[in-house]
Amino acid sequence: MDRKGILVVVSGFSGSGKGTLMKALVEKYHQYALSISATTRQPRPGEENGREYFFVTREAFQKMAEENALIEYAQYVENYYGTPREYVEKQLASGRDVILEIEIQGALRIKEQYPDALLLFVTPPSAEELKRRLTNRGTESAEVIEARLKRAAEEAEGVEAYDYIVVNDDLEACTERLHQLIEAQHSRTSLQKEFLNRIRAELKHLN
Amino acid sequence: MDRKGILVVVSGFSGSGKGTLMKALVEKYHQYALSISATTRQPRPGEENGREYFFVTREAFQKMAEENALIEYAQYVENYYGTPREYVEKQLASGRDVILEIEIQGALRIKEQYPDALLLFVTPPSAEELKRRLTNRGTESAEVIEARLKRAAEEAEGVEAYDYIVVNDDLEACTERLHQLIEAQHSRTSLQKEFLNRIRAELKHLN
Repeated sequence: MDRKGILVVVSGFSGSGKGTLMKALVEKYHQYALSISATTRQPRPGEENGREYFFVTREAFQKMAEENALIEYAQYVENYYGTPREYVEKQLASGRDVILEIEIQGALRIKEQYPDALLLFVTPPSAEELKRRLTNRGTESAEVIEARLKRAAEEAEGVEAYDYIVVNDDLEACTERLHQLIEAQHSRTSLQKEFLNRIRAELKHLN
Repeated sequence: MDRKGILVVVSGFSGSGKGTLMKALVEKYHQYALSISATTRQPRPGEENGREYFFVTREAFQKMAEENALIEYAQYVENYYGTPREYVEKQLASGRDVILEIEIQGALRIKEQYPDALLLFVTPPSAEELKRRLTNRGTESAEVIEARLKRAAEEAEGVEAYDYIVVNDDLEACTERLHQLIEAQHSRTSLQKEFLNRIRAELKHLN
């Protein structure tokens, strides 16, 4: 099969475990490259520039946006988040699949520009389980948990924009399921144009 | 996950090995039910009524079509082929995935009626390999092989109607790939309405 890299957008409720899942996926399968977003927000304790995010000034971010150096960007509260184009295009060209962990506005913009992008939405098996996970972190106040659950209810309204729903019940099983969904996408007819053209030309030649 | 049976249409070049593949699939995974077509053509030596086909008279076939007892039917040369509705609906309701080995006209009619049906097209890795397989059967005359290759060239024109292209390079690997494509389809957002409604209601209740 002729193989090009594809874009994989992963969204999901806060508390769905998608961060851990993405980490497990890229550690297990080296065909995946995780895109790192640029943001204007301040780094939190423990965050490193170029690992969690590229931390940039508002001016630098604006310049990137104006120069079309971001595939998509969106504003949350008072901060901007965006996907640098160069890294993504380089990885795709080299045949690697690029994973973008972004939210719904970004996901929709990606789909417009890359119709063959795969849009995945990660969810825990139930809302109760989501609440339990948020509570068990032990790091969030009751107010933050409440805000997260409100946010989740809003996010749940946009899920129809995604191609697949991935229930994160078990880290290992779910990592494998994600991998298989991405593998399957490579066999999409729309991504097999070269193969189709080749076999059509061969058949013509044989007839 | 709430799980309903889905329809899986498998088409492919004659010589793609799809018959063997389907047999391997339903033997390995008992979640699949293979639909048996009704046909007005005469049974060939070794074929059994109710195994390869339901062999019916023209009158019986016409009656089935008129009574809406066929999901789809099509004419090839002077014979009719169709998919009996009752078996399919019963299997789907019981949660089994139903596999239809039919050709493109039928595939398109299925997709109209069952938008969540999965349409798969099986192909050998190359046209050369297709020719080699047809020749190696040793049962076909040069004329039949030539006719098959001509037919394949025509069939290749319709492949864009299918969701996925499945390259049959190795029986076991390909059986597994088919299984994974069908599994993936169950996670399609459009097939997860019940799950989504449930988690939305739960989130509303928690908030």
